[in-house]
Amino acid sequence: MEDLSRIDAHIDDNFDRHLDRVRTFVRQPSISGEGVGMQETAELVAASIKELGGQSEIVPTSGWPVVYGEIDAGAPRTLLLYGMYDVQPVAGEDWIVPPFGGQIVDQFEDLGRCLVNRGIANQKGPLAGAFNALASVKAVAGKLPVNLKFVVEGEEELGSRHLPEFITRYKDRLRAEGTYFPAFAQDRNGKPIIWLGVKGIVFFELVCRGGNWGGPTTRGIHGSNNAWIASPVWRMVHALKTMVDEHERIAIDGFYKSVAPPTDEDEKVLDQLEKTFEPDIVLKSNDVRRFKYNLRGTPLLRRFLFEPQLNIDGLAGGHYGAGTKTLLPHEVRVKMDVRLVPNMEPEEVRERIKAHLRKIGCADFELHLEEGYPWARMSPSAAISQAMIRTMSAFGREPEIWPNIAGSAPFYLFSRVLGQPFTIGGMGHGGRQHSPNEYATVEGIRLFEKSAARFLYEFAGIKE
Amino acid sequence: MEDLSRIDAHIDDNFDRHLDRVRTFVRQPSISGEGVGMQETAELVAASIKELGGQSEIVPTSGWPVVYGEIDAGAPRTLLLYGMYDVQPVAGEDWIVPPFGGQIVDQFEDLGRCLVNRGIANQKGPLAGAFNALASVKAVAGKLPVNLKFVVEGEEELGSRHLPEFITRYKDRLRAEGTYFPAFAQDRNGKPIIWLGVKGIVFFELVCRGGNWGGPTTRGIHGSNNAWIASPVWRMVHALKTMVDEHERIAIDGFYKSVAPPTDEDEKVLDQLEKTFEPDIVLKSNDVRRFKYNLRGTPLLRRFLFEPQLNIDGLAGGHYGAGTKTLLPHEVRVKMDVRLVPNMEPEEVRERIKAHLRKIGCADFELHLEEGYPWARMSPSAAISQAMIRTMSAFGREPEIWPNIAGSAPFYLFSRVLGQPFTIGGMGHGGRQHSPNEYATVEGIRLFEKSAARFLYEFAGIKE
Repeated sequence: MEDLSRIDAHIDDNFDRHLDRVRTFVRQPSISGEGVGMQETAELVAASIKELGGQSEIVPTSGWPVVYGEIDAGAPRTLLLYGMYDVQPVAGEDWIVPPFGGQIVDQFEDLGRCLVNRGIANQKGPLAGAFNALASVKAVAGKLPVNLKFVVEGEEELGSRHLPEFITRYKDRLRAEGTYFPAFAQDRNGKPIIWLGVKGIVFFELVCRGGNWGGPTTRGIHGSNNAWIASPVWRMVHALKTMVDEHERIAIDGFYKSVAPPTDEDEKVLDQLEKTFEPDIVLKSNDVRRFKYNLRGTPLLRRFLFEPQLNIDGLAGGHYGAGTKTLLPHEVRVKMDVRLVPNMEPEEVRERIKAHLRKIGCADFELHLEEGYPWARMSPSAAISQAMIRTMSAFGREPEIWPNIAGSAPFYLFSRVLGQPFTIGGMGHGGRQHSPNEYATVEGIRLFEKSAARFLYEFAGIKE
Repeated sequence: MEDLSRIDAHIDDNFDRHLDRVRTFVRQPSISGEGVGMQETAELVAASIKELGGQSEIVPTSGWPVVYGEIDAGAPRTLLLYGMYDVQPVAGEDWIVPPFGGQIVDQFEDLGRCLVNRGIANQKGPLAGAFNALASVKAVAGKLPVNLKFVVEGEEELGSRHLPEFITRYKDRLRAEGTYFPAFAQDRNGKPIIWLGVKGIVFFELVCRGGNWGGPTTRGIHGSNNAWIASPVWRMVHALKTMVDEHERIAIDGFYKSVAPPTDEDEKVLDQLEKTFEPDIVLKSNDVRRFKYNLRGTPLLRRFLFEPQLNIDGLAGGHYGAGTKTLLPHEVRVKMDVRLVPNMEPEEVRERIKAHLRKIGCADFELHLEEGYPWARMSPSAAISQAMIRTMSAFGREPEIWPNIAGSAPFYLFSRVLGQPFTIGGMGHGGRQHSPNEYATVEGIRLFEKSAARFLYEFAGIKE
């Protein structure tokens, strides 16, 4: 570990250049949902691996390509860096700066200098920061303390639809002692946080359109016809209302059947977490005034972390633009997702949704099942978790440990399919993922780089 | 009436030129909801009145202007021609020809040559056709058989929001013995139809957004937060489901209280109507496979014509564009309208909607009450109705008489406010109003012009 203070100094001395790389990464749009800038961004990532003396290739899949890379440092242990180069769309959002302008805003929300750009927090900031950290480690120490493999996908925001395809194909080349997902993991007050896992997810789109049951079949028609012709929108409303109750509890038969209660180890983590958990920060970060449960502390956390939810991501039908148009719409589309907790499996969830549609007489609805994947969790006592805890603690404050995050990422591919332990983390703070004015603090990016460098050494030193 | 065959011949001889005027009218976009081409279209209308030797002016209102005009023929009776120069939006619609291209399509849906263009049926085709008819009458007879006043508004598709303002201001200049709304009133098989009235309408938009009750307040946030933060979309779903039942019957307290059953005269009209009413034509015209009631004949017509409805014209919230975006939306918007039958009044309907929102605990929803207006009806035995019946019968087939149409137009301004009888009609066939590929048959436009000319004489000859 003797090189770390020199590596930190190297990061400080070169930080302007490092920040330029981060800005280059985020200025390059890479909206997988719209197919914007994907190849260009994959090339940026592949070039960054080569700059470190590694090998890289842009591997085609049935969707957007995966960037695969290797750096052989001749070290005893190998770390797989999993990252993503795609970002969320920005259409219809209201930003204070251009969403791909790479601009630094002074005193953004009392957080000091912030880079405000789509993808800076989720997840190109940490990705570019990791390349910077690796460059400083190499410059100071001459070589990396671990061998590296890189899997940087372009479809994380689409549910990692084709990552399984890549993982299956490259399985033999992906052997490593652990998977690392770089992230800015301090909250807005600087508290470091470690998430030991993720929920799984099932995306789907439900479409009701006119057909043999009634309703207009091919186009919206004059609204006055609703006096004798049925509405796909009303039918959808009455279908949706059966899926969750008025407290948003899922009302689909058997939906909670596979939901496992927190284990004893989970309860210990929750007890510890409750001591430092600040619900008001969550509310403030999200511009929300209250939670949906009249709960605090562990009971609130249990609901958040150990229960599934059925969310409506968006819906549209008929005329919703400017002006008045009296229309009886011929279709309505609803995008939804379920977040899966142990021990729910995507296939089971899909079957329950299909069964529910049959039960309520809506088997004729179109159900577009997008890709989904299961949850993934690590024990806090796993060596890789402990390496991340030691890494973040080294920056002066014990990290707050969460059994998992409510969001989703396909870590099951590493834990279940490849059989590798994984960890998520790093210093730094960012926010507004999936929202306008996504940001990260500039000082947080610097701190992240130092933590990423330190983690390599902590991981290299694991004795198992 | 001796000039009519010569007028018909004049229309035939000049029909290419007449059709050019119709195409000029419809090629000029006039989308009131989007503010496209409004002034230009008002000028076209005003110029057409002047070409006939009349006076016209473009009268500003708080919204789009009204074109007012007068033609003094020195005749004993005066007819007020009410028209509209605005059309529905076309955004997001799929057309087989450009929607403002004025193109003639051969064999459109087995109807022969059709002009396919936004507004050709609703209502610039009949408006331009009426100007053509007036020109032929003048050319053949030297002068018109009636004095004319013109009120051509630009906000019919917006619920005629500022027409009352104009009517109040111009009341003294609008005195006439009747109001005439030119329309293509044959169905797709050529059957002539007369509608004796219209339903009223109340438009509104309902918005649920996050606030003190919960939910994101300023922006959509990461969808995984729905595990502990409530969703405005789910709240809206549960509010909407209380407004109509699963059979689309309105479930708002007292909503049917003011609904009058059909009168004896209505029942007679319905009995007559049932004999020729062809429900299959309605289904075919709208690309619909069944009505929402298992009824035929008079019972179906009663539901259609004598009951209110609550329609969802459109709704949107969250991410409904391309790609997946897991989002907990901060707001959802629903555009709705109620169609009013005798004796419902707009103010009463608005109060019932507000009371319902209070009752279900949704008084914090934003309720944007757009303008609305009451129903209007004429008796079939009214002299103006009889003049229209005689006009259309003259083309070889008894018209089918409907007590009213399910759609809305602000005839109450003429019947209630100005105290004038009104009529709607004319030969010709058009369809797909408010939908893509709105059309009218070219031969129908010719027939319409002849019927409009004839109606002037029928109206001039009324003995009251």
